[in-house]
Amino acid sequence: MLRIEPDEYGSRVEALQTAVLQAGLDLFIVSAFDSIYYLTGAGFEPLERPFFLLVRPHGTMTLIVPKLDHEHMKKAHGVLPENIHTYWEYPAPNGRCWSDRLCEQIDDAQSIGIEPTLRQEVVNQISGYSLRVEPLVERLRLVKSRAEVKMIERAAMYADYGVERLLAASYYSAMVAEGFAETRKVTSRIIREVHDWEPLTTKVIMATWAAPGSAMPHSVPDLCDRLCDGPHVAMVLTRVNGYAAESERTYFTAPPSTEATKAFDAMTEARRIAFELIRPGMACSELDGRVNDFLRKEGYDSEEQRLHRTGHGFGLGNHEAPWIAGGCDDRLAENMVISIEPGIYLEGLGGVRHSDTVLVTYDGFRLMTRSEMELGSLVIRKWKPLTWGKGWMVRRALGLARRTRVEK
Amino acid sequence: MLRIEPDEYGSRVEALQTAVLQAGLDLFIVSAFDSIYYLTGAGFEPLERPFFLLVRPHGTMTLIVPKLDHEHMKKAHGVLPENIHTYWEYPAPNGRCWSDRLCEQIDDAQSIGIEPTLRQEVVNQISGYSLRVEPLVERLRLVKSRAEVKMIERAAMYADYGVERLLAASYYSAMVAEGFAETRKVTSRIIREVHDWEPLTTKVIMATWAAPGSAMPHSVPDLCDRLCDGPHVAMVLTRVNGYAAESERTYFTAPPSTEATKAFDAMTEARRIAFELIRPGMACSELDGRVNDFLRKEGYDSEEQRLHRTGHGFGLGNHEAPWIAGGCDDRLAENMVISIEPGIYLEGLGGVRHSDTVLVTYDGFRLMTRSEMELGSLVIRKWKPLTWGKGWMVRRALGLARRTRVEK
Repeated sequence: MLRIEPDEYGSRVEALQTAVLQAGLDLFIVSAFDSIYYLTGAGFEPLERPFFLLVRPHGTMTLIVPKLDHEHMKKAHGVLPENIHTYWEYPAPNGRCWSDRLCEQIDDAQSIGIEPTLRQEVVNQISGYSLRVEPLVERLRLVKSRAEVKMIERAAMYADYGVERLLAASYYSAMVAEGFAETRKVTSRIIREVHDWEPLTTKVIMATWAAPGSAMPHSVPDLCDRLCDGPHVAMVLTRVNGYAAESERTYFTAPPSTEATKAFDAMTEARRIAFELIRPGMACSELDGRVNDFLRKEGYDSEEQRLHRTGHGFGLGNHEAPWIAGGCDDRLAENMVISIEPGIYLEGLGGVRHSDTVLVTYDGFRLMTRSEMELGSLVIRKWKPLTWGKGWMVRRALGLARRTRVEK
Repeated sequence: MLRIEPDEYGSRVEALQTAVLQAGLDLFIVSAFDSIYYLTGAGFEPLERPFFLLVRPHGTMTLIVPKLDHEHMKKAHGVLPENIHTYWEYPAPNGRCWSDRLCEQIDDAQSIGIEPTLRQEVVNQISGYSLRVEPLVERLRLVKSRAEVKMIERAAMYADYGVERLLAASYYSAMVAEGFAETRKVTSRIIREVHDWEPLTTKVIMATWAAPGSAMPHSVPDLCDRLCDGPHVAMVLTRVNGYAAESERTYFTAPPSTEATKAFDAMTEARRIAFELIRPGMACSELDGRVNDFLRKEGYDSEEQRLHRTGHGFGLGNHEAPWIAGGCDDRLAENMVISIEPGIYLEGLGGVRHSDTVLVTYDGFRLMTRSEMELGSLVIRKWKPLTWGKGWMVRRALGLARRTRVEK
C-alpha cells in the first residue's frame, strides 16, 4: 500500500530537530495543520481549537491537543502517548485553556521558534518569551522523498483523469455544469482504488473555465456558462491522502481564431523554454524571468495579460515553496515537484494556460501529469448530444435545463 | 432570491467603522477570509496570497489583492473599484510585494487594529507600527440580521435532509460508506434549489459515526465500519452560500442496551435543561455549567465521558462565538444562533449526542433543525436489503463489497 512509513516520519522529526539546533533555538512550536500532519501523519479538523507540537533539539516531542482529540491523536508517529497533553476546550475556565498547557510546556525555553502562519492570538499569549519566525518545516518539505514522489504521482494520475472527464463532457454549447458533475466520478474512483483513503486530506476540485471567463482564472465559473467559441481552461486540483497535484489544459469546442492560436502557440513555446531550464541549481526567479521575457517579446507585455508567476511547488499543499516567481530566492533541486503554467489572458477572448505537475530530476525533469498538450488534440469536434442524451440529464438533474444565466 | 442585499453590507461596514472609532484606532486591518466575505460579499481562494481590507473610522475602504484577483474582486460591495490596489504575486520582486502595498496604504496611521487570526509573517512586516489585536468583526457577527437568520435556516433545512438521508441508508450491518454516499444527494439538491449557489462558500460534510467509534467524535470513521449494536451518531454540517448549520442525531440499528438507554435519557434531559435556560441575558458559561452539573450528578463525572462544551455559535462559520462553554464571557442575546449538543461518551459502547441549530428569540428559543429526537423514532428496525439491493450497489461501486476493514 502506498503510504508514508513510520520510519519516514522518524527521519522528518530528526531533520527538524537538527534544523532547530542549527537555528540556535531551544524549542520550536509547530502549529499549522500541514506541518503537524507532515511530522506525525495524524490528521484533525483544524477549527478554532489550536494544536501544538513542541520540538526541542533533543528528546521526544510533546503534543498539545483538545481533550476531544486525545484518543485519536495517539496514533501520531513519534509522539509517545504519555507526551500528549490535553486542554479542556475553546474557551475554558482559567488554568484549563490551551494557553495554560502551552506555557507550562514551554517552561524554561529561552529562544523559541514559531511558524510564519501562527495566529496572532497565540503569539500574544506567549509574547513574554523571545520569539523568532522560522519556516523550518516549509524548508524540510521542499525536497521530496521517494515515497512522497510516488504519492504525488498518484494524485497527478487522478488529476489527468479529471481532465479526461472534463474534456469528455465537452461539446459546443455544453454547460459548465456537465463537466463539474464529473467530479464525483474522480472522487469515486479515488475511494474505490485507494483503500486507506483519508477524508480529511483528500479532495478533488475541478471545472472548466469557459471562454471568455477563462481570462479570469480566479473568478469561479458559473455552472450555467456555456462552452462556445474561444479558449476554455480545464482545471483539476487533486489531493490524495495528503499529497497534491494539478493538471490543466486549454481546449476549444470550436476551431480557434487566429488570435487564440497565436496565444496558444506562445504559451506552448513559453512552456518549452521553461522545461528546457528545469534542472538542479536553476534559480526559480530566473526561470520565471526568462519565461516572462519571452512572453513580453511576443507582444504580451502588459501584466494584465500575464497575471501570475510561472509556477509553484507541490507536496502536502496544492501551492507551496519553491515559488517559480521573481523574488523567490530558492534554486531548484533534485526531487522538488513544481508546476509549470505560464498563462496568457486576453479580455473578451479568454485565457490560455496548460499546467503540469513536474518532478525535478538529477539532469532535468519528468512530467508527472501526462494529458494531451498539442492543439490538434485539444479541439473537440463533437456534436451536441440529442436532447435525451447524457448532458441533458445532468442539466435536468441539476435543475438547469431551463435555467437562464444567474444575474451577478 | 435569498441573499444578503448590498444595503446590508453597507450597514456592516458602518457598524465596523463605529467599532474602529470606539476602539480608538486609526485603522483596522481585516485579513481573514470570513471577515472580508462578511463585509464585501466577495469570495476568493485564500491560499498563500494575502488579501487585506483596510477600514478607517470614516471614508471608504481600501482593498489590497493579488493582481490575479483584481478583476473579479471589483464585485465587492462598498469598495469602490478605484480603491482596490493590487500587488504582483507571492512572492514578488522588491517594491511589488503585498507588504509594499500594505505599508503604502497604512501610511500615517498611528494606532492599528489587527485580527486575532492574522499570520505572524504579516505582523512581522508591519511590526514598526503600534498594533493591537481586536476581534471587531467577530463581535459584529455575534447577533444575526433577519436575512442572516433566513440564510442559516436554509442551511439547517439541508442539514436535516442530510440526517434523513443517513437514517434512510441505515440498517443493522450497513456500512458507513452507504450513508456517506448520500452526500451527493444533499449537494445536488442544494445546487438544484439554490440558483445563485456559490461553490467557494457551500459545503456538505456528513457521515454516521458507528458505535463504538461514536465515542470518539473527532476520529473520522472508516467507510468500512458497520452499523451494529450501540448508539451511532449521524453528523451533518452544511454551509450554503456562506451560512452554516448542523443537525446531529444519535440512533440505533438494534434495540439499545440498558446502559445506552440510560445515557440517551440523560443526554435528552441535559438538552431539556439547556433549552429551558436559553433566553437573552443568560451567561453562556452558566448554561454550560448547569448542563455539566446535571451530567455529573447522573454519574457521568469523568471528563472522558463528556469531552466537550455544550455548544457554539453559527453564522459564516460552522463554529464561531458565542461559545457555550465555561470561560466564555458572552451572554446570549436575541438573534444569536447556537448549537445545543451535550454529549456522553462511553468507551467500548459509543457516544450519544443530538445537536440542533437554535435561534435565540426575545423570550426563549426556536429550533432551526427539526429532525426527530425521541428514542422511539430513532431505533431503526429495517431488514438488510437483498444482496442485489441498493446498499450492495453502493458497496460494489465503491469497491467495498469484498473489502475487509483497512488496517490502521
